[in-house]
Amino acid sequence: MADPRFFDNAGPLTLTQIEQLTGAKLTSEVSNLQVRDVAPIDNAASHHLSFCESIKFSSALSKTGAGAVFVTKALAHHAPKGTIIFESSKPSLAFATIANALYPSAHLLWPRATPPTFAIAPSARAGEGTVIAPGAFIGENVEIGDCCIIGPGSVIGRGVTIGHHTVIGAHVSISHTMMGDRCIVHSGARIGQDGFGFVNGPSGHYKIPQLGRVIIQDNVEIGSNCTIDRGALADTVIGEGTKIDNLVQIGHNTKIGRNCIIVSQGGISGSCEIEDFVVLGGQVGVADHVKIGKGTFVAGRGGVTRSLDAGKVYGGFPARPVEQWRREVGIISRLAKGTRPKDE
Amino acid sequence: MADPRFFDNAGPLTLTQIEQLTGAKLTSEVSNLQVRDVAPIDNAASHHLSFCESIKFSSALSKTGAGAVFVTKALAHHAPKGTIIFESSKPSLAFATIANALYPSAHLLWPRATPPTFAIAPSARAGEGTVIAPGAFIGENVEIGDCCIIGPGSVIGRGVTIGHHTVIGAHVSISHTMMGDRCIVHSGARIGQDGFGFVNGPSGHYKIPQLGRVIIQDNVEIGSNCTIDRGALADTVIGEGTKIDNLVQIGHNTKIGRNCIIVSQGGISGSCEIEDFVVLGGQVGVADHVKIGKGTFVAGRGGVTRSLDAGKVYGGFPARPVEQWRREVGIISRLAKGTRPKDE
Amino acid sequence: MADPRFFDNAGPLTLTQIEQLTGAKLTSEVSNLQVRDVAPIDNAASHHLSFCESIKFSSALSKTGAGAVFVTKALAHHAPKGTIIFESSKPSLAFATIANALYPSAHLLWPRATPPTFAIAPSARAGEGTVIAPGAFIGENVEIGDCCIIGPGSVIGRGVTIGHHTVIGAHVSISHTMMGDRCIVHSGARIGQDGFGFVNGPSGHYKIPQLGRVIIQDNVEIGSNCTIDRGALADTVIGEGTKIDNLVQIGHNTKIGRNCIIVSQGGISGSCEIEDFVVLGGQVGVADHVKIGKGTFVAGRGGVTRSLDAGKVYGGFPARPVEQWRREVGIISRLAKGTRPKDE
Repeated sequence: MADPRFFDNAGPLTLTQIEQLTGAKLTSEVSNLQVRDVAPIDNAASHHLSFCESIKFSSALSKTGAGAVFVTKALAHHAPKGTIIFESSKPSLAFATIANALYPSAHLLWPRATPPTFAIAPSARAGEGTVIAPGAFIGENVEIGDCCIIGPGSVIGRGVTIGHHTVIGAHVSISHTMMGDRCIVHSGARIGQDGFGFVNGPSGHYKIPQLGRVIIQDNVEIGSNCTIDRGALADTVIGEGTKIDNLVQIGHNTKIGRNCIIVSQGGISGSCEIEDFVVLGGQVGVADHVKIGKGTFVAGRGGVTRSLDAGKVYGGFPARPVEQWRREVGIISRLAKGTRPKDE
Repeated sequence: MADPRFFDNAGPLTLTQIEQLTGAKLTSEVSNLQVRDVAPIDNAASHHLSFCESIKFSSALSKTGAGAVFVTKALAHHAPKGTIIFESSKPSLAFATIANALYPSAHLLWPRATPPTFAIAPSARAGEGTVIAPGAFIGENVEIGDCCIIGPGSVIGRGVTIGHHTVIGAHVSISHTMMGDRCIVHSGARIGQDGFGFVNGPSGHYKIPQLGRVIIQDNVEIGSNCTIDRGALADTVIGEGTKIDNLVQIGHNTKIGRNCIIVSQGGISGSCEIEDFVVLGGQVGVADHVKIGKGTFVAGRGGVTRSLDAGKVYGGFPARPVEQWRREVGIISRLAKGTRPKDE
Repeated sequence: MADPRFFDNAGPLTLTQIEQLTGAKLTSEVSNLQVRDVAPIDNAASHHLSFCESIKFSSALSKTGAGAVFVTKALAHHAPKGTIIFESSKPSLAFATIANALYPSAHLLWPRATPPTFAIAPSARAGEGTVIAPGAFIGENVEIGDCCIIGPGSVIGRGVTIGHHTVIGAHVSISHTMMGDRCIVHSGARIGQDGFGFVNGPSGHYKIPQLGRVIIQDNVEIGSNCTIDRGALADTVIGEGTKIDNLVQIGHNTKIGRNCIIVSQGGISGSCEIEDFVVLGGQVGVADHVKIGKGTFVAGRGGVTRSLDAGKVYGGFPARPVEQWRREVGIISRLAKGTRPKDE
């Protein structure tokens, strides 16, 4: 699954190695299968190892194409025939352990074997009319189109592609990312670093390697000091024409549609789906796995805790239809002044 | 209007060129006037092109000194005699189009014609006792006073002026800015990048070029990873002695007075006016075009949605007098416990 | 008190110099004592100067080991016999003035006498297998362990120590810090800059020099564009195994325990104590001097205004037990719909 332009695969691993690394118990008949990669349960092929820890995903498990899975004993019978089963009391931890073993250097901005000795890698390419300012770092196999600007001191990690007429400000860092044409990225923005994902392990929070990418479509603008994390197994996506103000956080796996506006200091958690033409006011927060329908507007400081319909206006925390929120603010104010609410 | 130290003017444009670029219709008699610059309707001279889209500004239109204006057909009769009229269904978009044509490289940290080949431009000057750490980028015609420090990797764009005894941390980026004496700017602060301004165009959000500056007076302190955008047509101003904590956002055109305190993660939208000695607690948000009177205190996490009086204490969201907010919090708490509010 | 690896002491100062610098009045008999350092009232030795401005600290004053103190006239009689007394109408300002005189270059990333001419100081050491990417700045006497990575353009100030197997991303700046093994610091994080501390002076907010450090224990992860300020006189501490998401602010002197989780855009003010296994959701704010008990969870956007018990779940603003908060949200909603709250 992991894009080889960004990630070095240290596999394959034998089934025995997997048992040893995770403590999981291989309950299928012995096989010569080697595991080369990991994938989510609903998007895995025969060379992939996946996992299922919750009954919620038992249906996905029953249809998985994964060659091997970590599952709890209780869920094991849901797996298709022929799937190699590793029983584990904590499949997510076992999975993260193997993902780390396969991709031990997911965080690097260069291939593990060749730490950088040049600020601009000889294999990097830039098109006509592109200006790379002093102090920039350009990693291996980076491809930058025509008429771009890479600002002073900006860092572009291995394999990143950038389209034409895109402007990168000063001190921007970009890794694990494919970016389109006519984008503007302001100074200090961080794109493509690890998402925030952990599983509980015996000695604390255990890091889940982040093996996805960031896809930034054309005409996107990203403000200063924003942070856009790359996906865990999927991609984080910013749709065409979307404009993002300063200091905005976008969590891993989140998909943002086209022509959205996200005002300063907004925070969108992981795995959200923000449809086209959504507008989020300043300091809005969106909880994880939430969907916001097309064209909806959330007023500044709104806190979105559950999915919102398309084409509406919401406000407050928890975010609710804005007229309702205003009515509530009014009622509380009258109550505090000693005026009972009218029966409206 | 745009300060030539920071912006290269690509004009002038003929009236015919303006028609062609915008689709607006020249309804005045033919003239040889050439447009060299743009300005807001209330601050324009005869060589300026301006615009008026709303009846709210019809009075300003009637008194404008602009040589030419984009207006809707309905507003055109408000323009002074002799003003050259371009009728447009969307004057703001036409105006932004021409502003972009006149200033196509407003985002650059160097003159368009001379991309940087040196990390420190030969034309940059620094006073006695000033230390410029390794890795800094200093653009053309930058002027830095005596006894300053420019931290490792910091980026100072063309034409920026910095007074005496000012300390700039690591990885700071500063452009389109005039900064005073004895300021401290902490690592990663971003000063002078584009404000967040767009108009709706036929193919999405159309960028309004940001042609103002940032003025930072003496004795100002700016925290790590703050973002202070430059003005659109006016300047963003931080008054003398004001102290700003980390991760604070200041929007374009906002004026902050003297000796204010803005605690971490506060966000002030564009075009606000914050008077002297105002204190904003942590994570406070201020909506755009709001005025906060002298000496007022907004408690942490307050959300200021409208202008606030001087010398008061506010809290909550929407921000209201703090005693009222506390009373409301108490009332709700009692209600939820099954205690009816007393008639107070 | 101040760690000489990070701070150059410009002392000692004679008692007469102290009088002249501060305007305070030496009321003890003349002495040859020289002041070499400053310390808080409850942690001072005979070569230290301290201060007491409030009756709250009179008990600490009565037991202080400080050689000399600034006190108000009213509090002077609480000082132990033999303590040298400087009477001052504003002891905190006098103290800050002397702290600045003793440590005039607390903000520097290098010794005052030797501004950097190399990007990597000859005195810096790095262990086996450590990769330092191009563009990094490594200050005097920095010690980095084995198998670390210092990303492109990162800045490590004088005297910083970093353990083994720690990964520092791009454009990170770290100063006045001791960091453990197996930490991960993502791009753009700022660690060790000045805390936000001022006293009112006759000409505005007067800076209190920040003379503490940041201690980051093993296995800590710090997200992109976070800001972690160093302590004022004590240290800021991040406990082992704690994971911090992007754009989080940690104020000076705050101690965070082991295995905590702090989600994106959270802000923890100064002098807080966050115990082990605390989880703070996204955009949570914590007021200064607050304690949060072990294992407590604060839901996203919660605003913590006072200390919270261990092992509970809180939400809302001001943060309260989450069931209470939910009940309140429900009540308000019903009220606004014209339904009176039931007597629950």
